[in-house]
Amino acid sequence: MMAEWEQVQPQEIEARSFEIISKELGELDLEEKYALVLKRVIHATADFEYADNLVFSQNAVEHALEALQNGCCIVTDTQMAMAGINKKALKKLGIEIYNFISDEDVAKAAKRNQTTRAAACMDKAAAMQRPMILAVGNAPTALMRIYELVQQGKLLPELIVGVPVGFVNVIPSKEQILTLPVPYIVARGRKGGSNVAAAIVNALLYLIV
Amino acid sequence: MMAEWEQVQPQEIEARSFEIISKELGELDLEEKYALVLKRVIHATADFEYADNLVFSQNAVEHALEALQNGCCIVTDTQMAMAGINKKALKKLGIEIYNFISDEDVAKAAKRNQTTRAAACMDKAAAMQRPMILAVGNAPTALMRIYELVQQGKLLPELIVGVPVGFVNVIPSKEQILTLPVPYIVARGRKGGSNVAAAIVNALLYLIV
Repeated sequence: MMAEWEQVQPQEIEARSFEIISKELGELDLEEKYALVLKRVIHATADFEYADNLVFSQNAVEHALEALQNGCCIVTDTQMAMAGINKKALKKLGIEIYNFISDEDVAKAAKRNQTTRAAACMDKAAAMQRPMILAVGNAPTALMRIYELVQQGKLLPELIVGVPVGFVNVIPSKEQILTLPVPYIVARGRKGGSNVAAAIVNALLYLIV
Repeated sequence: MMAEWEQVQPQEIEARSFEIISKELGELDLEEKYALVLKRVIHATADFEYADNLVFSQNAVEHALEALQNGCCIVTDTQMAMAGINKKALKKLGIEIYNFISDEDVAKAAKRNQTTRAAACMDKAAAMQRPMILAVGNAPTALMRIYELVQQGKLLPELIVGVPVGFVNVIPSKEQILTLPVPYIVARGRKGGSNVAAAIVNALLYLIV
């Protein structure tokens, strides 16, 4: 890795970054839209492992873009993922974004059901009965609950962004999502994060904004 | 990597995660407080490379803890890093947190000085003339500006959390910080992120909360 300074104007930094990422990735067996999602994740993490870990269900990106253009909303599992999603792009597209983690009723439901607040958030999302993209960057328990809700016919998301990070039940919670007949973008393995979830949603937004 | 489910109560997930991280890290040549910072970064990223990348100036953690206990504030370069820092812990300790990225005057200053908004945020932070911890998880330009401000005697942070992620000027911006006579925690190389910045600040808060 070089440690030299590059003379780049502020507005050119992102393009230059993507140039470097594309060069280091080399040939990809991915359609351009999908490659852009992957590259934005690498841009957010500087971690090329996502080239192996990030998996897409068939037509996941096309389906998500159509849903976004038809006014679906976005629900995240953390405030951090929500904070990382581009508000200007959301506004331009008229897309609503929700995060329920600090809601009083969610805290109560989690306690009552002996589950996590992140899982209770997904119940609250399902109760909205609206077309939505679910972006999970932190809590495998949220992803586990999404799986149950879909299996029970209580939730049919337009896209599941399943990229929680961690060490306890993270891997099986992701593998389970891959068995669902629902569009998904999942980072297999332990890695992921709120930044990765935000990067994926931003990549989708930038494809249509 | 196992893909089996673990039966763990919600409130035990974090402790179990740290147990796994400690086991996989093995013996560390770090004092316990420093090891906890590293482990929380790995907890947030599932990336053990930080065991090699994360560097601390001498007494950085002790100095930061003392500053926090004496009521220093925290300034982040992104909304996302701010969103990831534990608000309950901040409140309990009476610590204020700031992020200036969406401020009108910052946008104007960035345009006027042909710099990034993230860099202009650091000028605004310096102008506060208060003891502060600067947490930079995204913008190398913020870190570059911090270096200049310290060199010019306009800024003397209690701690620089220097963990921007990326491909353009990220590495040299971090290497430069290592030459300053100021407490720092830096993730060398390309990796880092708002999640890493938040994890480091949270680790410090949890050591005293």
